[in-house]
Amino acid sequence: MHKYKGSSKLLLLPRNTEEVSKILEYCNSRRLAVVPQGGNTGLVGGSVPVFDEVIINAGSMNKIIAFDKVSGILVCEAGCILENLISYLDNQGFIMPLDLGAKGSCQIGGNVSTNAGGLRFVRYGSLHGNVLGLEAVLANGDVLDMLGTLRKDNTGYDLKHLFIGSEGSLGIVTKVSILTPPKLSSVNIAFLACEDYLSCQKLLSEAKRKLGEILSAFEFLDSHAMDLVLNHLEGVRNPLPSAVHNFYVLIETTGSDESYDKEKLEAFLLHSMESGLISDGVLAQDINQASSFWRIREGVPEALMRAGPVYKYDLSIPVEKMYSLVEDMRLRLGQSANVVGYGHLGDGNLHLNISAPRYDDTILAQIEPYVYEWTSKHRGSISAEHGLGLMKANEIFYSKSHETVQLMASIKKLLDPNGILNPYKVLPHSLCSYS
Amino acid sequence: MHKYKGSSKLLLLPRNTEEVSKILEYCNSRRLAVVPQGGNTGLVGGSVPVFDEVIINAGSMNKIIAFDKVSGILVCEAGCILENLISYLDNQGFIMPLDLGAKGSCQIGGNVSTNAGGLRFVRYGSLHGNVLGLEAVLANGDVLDMLGTLRKDNTGYDLKHLFIGSEGSLGIVTKVSILTPPKLSSVNIAFLACEDYLSCQKLLSEAKRKLGEILSAFEFLDSHAMDLVLNHLEGVRNPLPSAVHNFYVLIETTGSDESYDKEKLEAFLLHSMESGLISDGVLAQDINQASSFWRIREGVPEALMRAGPVYKYDLSIPVEKMYSLVEDMRLRLGQSANVVGYGHLGDGNLHLNISAPRYDDTILAQIEPYVYEWTSKHRGSISAEHGLGLMKANEIFYSKSHETVQLMASIKKLLDPNGILNPYKVLPHSLCSYS
Repeated sequence: MHKYKGSSKLLLLPRNTEEVSKILEYCNSRRLAVVPQGGNTGLVGGSVPVFDEVIINAGSMNKIIAFDKVSGILVCEAGCILENLISYLDNQGFIMPLDLGAKGSCQIGGNVSTNAGGLRFVRYGSLHGNVLGLEAVLANGDVLDMLGTLRKDNTGYDLKHLFIGSEGSLGIVTKVSILTPPKLSSVNIAFLACEDYLSCQKLLSEAKRKLGEILSAFEFLDSHAMDLVLNHLEGVRNPLPSAVHNFYVLIETTGSDESYDKEKLEAFLLHSMESGLISDGVLAQDINQASSFWRIREGVPEALMRAGPVYKYDLSIPVEKMYSLVEDMRLRLGQSANVVGYGHLGDGNLHLNISAPRYDDTILAQIEPYVYEWTSKHRGSISAEHGLGLMKANEIFYSKSHETVQLMASIKKLLDPNGILNPYKVLPHSLCSYS
Repeated sequence: MHKYKGSSKLLLLPRNTEEVSKILEYCNSRRLAVVPQGGNTGLVGGSVPVFDEVIINAGSMNKIIAFDKVSGILVCEAGCILENLISYLDNQGFIMPLDLGAKGSCQIGGNVSTNAGGLRFVRYGSLHGNVLGLEAVLANGDVLDMLGTLRKDNTGYDLKHLFIGSEGSLGIVTKVSILTPPKLSSVNIAFLACEDYLSCQKLLSEAKRKLGEILSAFEFLDSHAMDLVLNHLEGVRNPLPSAVHNFYVLIETTGSDESYDKEKLEAFLLHSMESGLISDGVLAQDINQASSFWRIREGVPEALMRAGPVYKYDLSIPVEKMYSLVEDMRLRLGQSANVVGYGHLGDGNLHLNISAPRYDDTILAQIEPYVYEWTSKHRGSISAEHGLGLMKANEIFYSKSHETVQLMASIKKLLDPNGILNPYKVLPHSLCSYS
């Protein structure tokens, strides 16, 4: 996004935990700041060396260590690329509990460190539930072996959670143990059109109850997002071309019985059509069509990039209020920018993207802090899944209480007294001393 | 179990967070130790005042604060009894993601503080995944408002996880926000017999794949457990009386379509019978029969209590090795005790119970530390779901590395510098100074 420019003279590619440990021990003793990097697919500047930090890239630690077919537990190194893990598991009859557009580059260590959400969250939930164990190296080089492979373990504080989502600021994740669900044979995808946001919401409530245990994704995009995809991505066609619609919803079901699941989804579509919740809809007839539906939803960020400068916000907002922010922002910005709303409706996660002719302080001043204040007022989160990174470190108080942030800073101080791990990120600068 | 005798001169029943805060502020300033109590259903002495601790009982904080029917998010006070929450949600068309035998007394604050597992874990996973937010009071009286009601929130360290499973030693949980799944209309239960443990294992693998998304419980008990239930609980009958079997398995499915789900479970049973995995089996025909099946599994702890003194162990062990411990223990103890194995097979969680004619140091010396060493050797956990409490605080190193326990102690020191919160519990005494 041309927002941050990295500046570093040294990139290290450790091959194993011991090397990470030696690097950190050395850097800590000399008070040299480091920035851990995975696949560099983050959107908030979390992996950017701000001044002169030493880059520690996990890419050379990319081995799968073990996979247990009985329990479905995978143990691997942090640098494994998500898509490679997905392919590996596919051959074993399992799937990763997370999937996201950046899967071809992002690494599992980065996914864990940023608590990535993604497309399967509505079904399989958070990494806090799916990650069973971690190995992490602390700032002083100490290796924390928390690499359990058990579904249940209540022996003391579950410290791995400190490293899930702390964006490399408390330690560097080097190994991951994760519970993977069995691959179910039947996947069905529908692409639907709704005329208003209220219908999208009602459709979600209905889907949760009627599709119940087979619902595996509930994504939405507005007509602005659809137009961008159709105009900027090659080979993408509108699956519902007969009319212009205001909203599009992608529903995926995953189950163990092809004919039954399909029948169930068809019945759901028919019922939704009859009750007027959807104005049109189509069920993917084969895997190519299914991919083409996903391509539309997953292609929105790419289409936005191609359209020009973009201001990106990743927000959690109670579902019923979510789209009001998009509408408010449109009124506020008028003709000066194209306001686009899409995201993981099933999780209450809106991606608000504002596409502008150029990066411009006047436009930015119209957006921020308005968008954060709006979100805070509605008890939302200013970062649903992207993290705070560099971009939002100072905005943390919009979503967290003063006492909570103070405790975060105390924990940072305890684990990284010299502040060498990913400085300027996550925590507000007022609470961190970089001397 | 007559194992611990509480000793306290003062029990306080705060009515709200502010009162908890004032109590802790006062106790902290005078260095008075406190023990937080929920429903007192723990099994490891976690809520017992060891010497003279002030008891802070959450029972008077029992209000439901809010329930959002769109998102299924429940917010309530810590003292709500689990069964009351289950009933409340039932009326709203939702269920709690956890359920356990002690539901009639245990409180949600205690469930969260001990990271309770229970009977629905195989389907809905851990409280680390289901609890969305918490309010907790720190040792110094500071109130930490982390009571978010969002499925996704990546704004800084997710500190609520520190309080989930730390058994009241880092703070007192006063409010909980939890994601509750929609109640699905179709619940089916089968009670099956297997002749050997290997068949139970294979049946689990098959069930995960063939019942897939509708599997909601997979519990087992051995013939020793069954005999105890039949002999000590009134009105319980063996659903499979035609022969004596070595193992019994209870399978529950939960889905959205009664006739289809039943058909699926029936087909699964038929196939398992034909392939010889099960030697007998019966499907509950109505809700009374379903309850009677659950009564057998849930009645095991009660039957054991009635049979006399019992040594209880709650272990996570890789499924394939789990029952070997029961057999090894039988060989080791010979005629001196009745060794019983049952538990949550679907989660790799064994409840090893040893029923003896009397509490006897000779028997105990035969069991401990052998059972912990065995578990540690197989990379298991010496506490799957019960926690460490007083009973196993000093045994933590069997399941956690030295560096990890050291960091736990540092975090304890940071949050509770005077060590007033639930002393003598969770962490090994060697790392805590009680001056």
